[in-house]
Amino acid sequence: MGRKPTKLKIIPLGGLNEIGKNMTAIEFKDEIIIIDCGLSFPEDEMLGIDMVIPDISYLLKNKDKVKGIFLTHGHEDHIGALPYVLKKINLPVYGTRLTLGLVEIKLKEHKLSNVHLQRVTPGDSIKMGSFAVEFIRSSHSIPDACCIAIHTPLGVVFHTGDFKVDYTPIAGEMIDLHKIAELGQKGVLVMLADSTNAERRGATMSEKKVEATFQNIFRNTKQRIIVATFASNVHRVQQVMDAAQQHNRKVVVSGRSMVNVVGVAEELGILTLPENLLIDIDEMDQYQDHELVIITTGSQGEPMAALSRMASSEHKKLEIQKGDLVVFSSTPIPGNEKLVSRVVNQLFEKGADVIYESLAEVHVSGHACQEELKLMHRLVKPKYFIPAHGEFRHLMKHAQLAEDLGMDKENIFIAQNGSIIEFTKDSAKINGSVPAGRVLVDGLGVGDVGNIVLRDRKHLAEDGLMVVVVTITKESGKIVAGPDIISRGFVYVRESEVLMVEAKDVVKKALELCEQQNQREWAILKNAIRDGLKDFLWEKTKRRPMILPVIMEV
Amino acid sequence: MGRKPTKLKIIPLGGLNEIGKNMTAIEFKDEIIIIDCGLSFPEDEMLGIDMVIPDISYLLKNKDKVKGIFLTHGHEDHIGALPYVLKKINLPVYGTRLTLGLVEIKLKEHKLSNVHLQRVTPGDSIKMGSFAVEFIRSSHSIPDACCIAIHTPLGVVFHTGDFKVDYTPIAGEMIDLHKIAELGQKGVLVMLADSTNAERRGATMSEKKVEATFQNIFRNTKQRIIVATFASNVHRVQQVMDAAQQHNRKVVVSGRSMVNVVGVAEELGILTLPENLLIDIDEMDQYQDHELVIITTGSQGEPMAALSRMASSEHKKLEIQKGDLVVFSSTPIPGNEKLVSRVVNQLFEKGADVIYESLAEVHVSGHACQEELKLMHRLVKPKYFIPAHGEFRHLMKHAQLAEDLGMDKENIFIAQNGSIIEFTKDSAKINGSVPAGRVLVDGLGVGDVGNIVLRDRKHLAEDGLMVVVVTITKESGKIVAGPDIISRGFVYVRESEVLMVEAKDVVKKALELCEQQNQREWAILKNAIRDGLKDFLWEKTKRRPMILPVIMEV
Repeated sequence: MGRKPTKLKIIPLGGLNEIGKNMTAIEFKDEIIIIDCGLSFPEDEMLGIDMVIPDISYLLKNKDKVKGIFLTHGHEDHIGALPYVLKKINLPVYGTRLTLGLVEIKLKEHKLSNVHLQRVTPGDSIKMGSFAVEFIRSSHSIPDACCIAIHTPLGVVFHTGDFKVDYTPIAGEMIDLHKIAELGQKGVLVMLADSTNAERRGATMSEKKVEATFQNIFRNTKQRIIVATFASNVHRVQQVMDAAQQHNRKVVVSGRSMVNVVGVAEELGILTLPENLLIDIDEMDQYQDHELVIITTGSQGEPMAALSRMASSEHKKLEIQKGDLVVFSSTPIPGNEKLVSRVVNQLFEKGADVIYESLAEVHVSGHACQEELKLMHRLVKPKYFIPAHGEFRHLMKHAQLAEDLGMDKENIFIAQNGSIIEFTKDSAKINGSVPAGRVLVDGLGVGDVGNIVLRDRKHLAEDGLMVVVVTITKESGKIVAGPDIISRGFVYVRESEVLMVEAKDVVKKALELCEQQNQREWAILKNAIRDGLKDFLWEKTKRRPMILPVIMEV
Repeated sequence: MGRKPTKLKIIPLGGLNEIGKNMTAIEFKDEIIIIDCGLSFPEDEMLGIDMVIPDISYLLKNKDKVKGIFLTHGHEDHIGALPYVLKKINLPVYGTRLTLGLVEIKLKEHKLSNVHLQRVTPGDSIKMGSFAVEFIRSSHSIPDACCIAIHTPLGVVFHTGDFKVDYTPIAGEMIDLHKIAELGQKGVLVMLADSTNAERRGATMSEKKVEATFQNIFRNTKQRIIVATFASNVHRVQQVMDAAQQHNRKVVVSGRSMVNVVGVAEELGILTLPENLLIDIDEMDQYQDHELVIITTGSQGEPMAALSRMASSEHKKLEIQKGDLVVFSSTPIPGNEKLVSRVVNQLFEKGADVIYESLAEVHVSGHACQEELKLMHRLVKPKYFIPAHGEFRHLMKHAQLAEDLGMDKENIFIAQNGSIIEFTKDSAKINGSVPAGRVLVDGLGVGDVGNIVLRDRKHLAEDGLMVVVVTITKESGKIVAGPDIISRGFVYVRESEVLMVEAKDVVKKALELCEQQNQREWAILKNAIRDGLKDFLWEKTKRRPMILPVIMEV
């Protein structure tokens, strides 16, 4: 009997069945490398949660195997979990200029100073044990994005990262189709590819497309212009800066992340700014409206972002003026539609004019549509395919697209986070799984808020609570103080005095009954209070506040 | 000096700066009539709220003047507040067949039996004091929708209701453009018009357009077909029924409101069903998959609706099977995108195929786009114009459209809910306002949940709460029991024992300090507990749970 063949394992720890917290482990023998390390934003039902990060217990269990983290690009859903992961395993981190520039800001905020960051240039190949990790220039809605090809003893794993095919990028070179074609020609074992826009026909427009719209807007506007966009979309920012320069306007940069990213991008030479283009927010009064552009965060309607604060008159230094032209150079991320809409309405109410995507071509997507995906599949010609970076519906559509291109259904793996996809030279299968749940971050707590806490928050959010306190004597069990009732989030107490008095009576009666039956056990007393009140309140209000009975003994 | 001229007042009590709770009061001398009486669904921040209805305190104050309610159509945002309003003022209600059919269901649910419902037919004119209220056939995403022309001594008030111009309606006649043209020719004082789609270019497609898509789907499907749509869109339901009949499928009706509406619509002769087309859900097993269509509620991803329950395996009688074809014949209402997306993903995971609007023409809007609005403005030729039924952004775009058609800016009124728009024969102005806030309905409570309760719910939702109870003696103020600490929605207590012990110490120390300073006032003790704990918890967790100190005295 021969030895078992060594297996290559691909384990997505995030990014499947969601557009968020991307993280993929690639394992061969006693070596693991990681592609991306992102966070996702909380779902609506995750009340009070700040962010969600991948469960890395598999990596912690195999700490000695894990060699390094390789980043495709600098978006939060690809780098946002780094501080949390690096606090648990200190690993070298590899990425391009801007990617690491953004990582540095993040690590500084978390006071992490002893991390080894290794800057790479597209075209670089990093040798790491049995792996050689090759960075390949790509295009996306952030500069310096890469595809990553991992050369393993069993073949090449090609990870597209987030990409689109932009034939006329704003700066730098195009996505390296030649390199990708070459890899495909030599043979690729498996491809993981971006599925975000797998439902959309055609091709995503070039970032360049936005230029004409901006030119038009700047040419025809005599007022102040305020442009909201993602800070990380440096090429968009560049286009706004260029238009401002051409139309003799000064630029004010507003919003913490916008200031951060513009600073880093300029320092790294990614953003090219003419001298004296930028002015400080305090210098604005030296200029007339037609000489000003404000570029700001808040394009998703985030309540704390600069634009939202301007719209609701809560910004310290900037007020919306009648006639301001506000451009949303963005599209609402699913779930943010109402937030954006609210800000748009507030801006209109303040007398601003507002331009947004449904009205003009002021935004393009960063993800490949179907025709671009087809190009990628045809160039890479992978033997196996794992649709990645998408909700289930997107993964399904992407798998369908691959099938339509002639790929064998058996060679396509729609996996779950945590699935172990196991490869030999000429076979592949899903073989078991590792833990890969969602770890919730709330303040300083990582993972300490789980289903029970969330269930309680939901209950409290919907109907509030009622605390019932009663003090009894140790000896006789007689009530010596209370019952006192305190409610929050239930009814407006001042207008519900009768209800509260009746509620107290209900509690008293429940306790009297217990006394008559000689019940002294706290659990029974508490249940009696809870049940009595619950029925009473439901009948009176059709609400179910959380009821917290507290018994004190003296 | 002559007498002051009698004024006509139009007072929108809802429906402005929102798409919801439509209600407009029209007042002349000592008579008020009301157009529509709708609810709106709660905003995200209205935690635990069931629905929002208009503030009718102005009407209650002028109870004797109010003569009747006239309904344009049967959607919730036009009839949903009726039970609440009728409980306060019993008024005759006028509406067309289906509109009153739906009202009856609603009143029955609220056990309101003594309401005078007066059925009208398009073309009817109701004389009511100084007013004559004329119902004019319109088209919308529900049958029997009307425009309403109110003839007053000062001129005609023309209210479009919700409308589109459908040149090829599914059943019945077209929107009565001739009547509208005639009114316009004779002279209209003021028009209130639907602004929902004022941002959209072109014209809304005919309901008929969906037929071809359905035919295609039914022709090419061998599996079970499940169609989700709004129950009230009876013409859509009719098209599904027709396609089922043509392709030899039986139809199961699923979901409470779908069952209700199909029943009412068939009874009224609005829905035409061949005999033996409908089968009971329990008869399904007598048919093969290709012989079945299920028409269901849940097209908005509402968690309790039938489709969502099928998708999450919580439906008692229906399970999604591999191969089922689910058609979302709808578009997500803003804010519902993620709910719909979740159901779509669950359906795909269960092996169903899913068709939704972005993939096929399975839905059309019920509201007029810009070209239809232009037609309406040109036909009605009103002297004054009040854009209605829209968020502020929509009202602005609609006003702009009217201006572009040559209307004088001075004659367009962008009003607020509660604005009094006052007309004489040849003048108009906004002259003051009446109360017109939002009344929140939570269970049986109407208006008892306000900002304070909502603020508490939000606080509880985000960080939970901590109750601190301590019993002291009346004489000495010494602690004789506690402090006890109970938390909910804050941390998972079993894994945070140390934190809870430390928190107790913090409280003890705070109370000891008070004792040393001989402080006995409860307010001061409570503040000491609150402040001490707040700082401690923030430092340890960066969270701010609600802290509820309770002091018992024995």
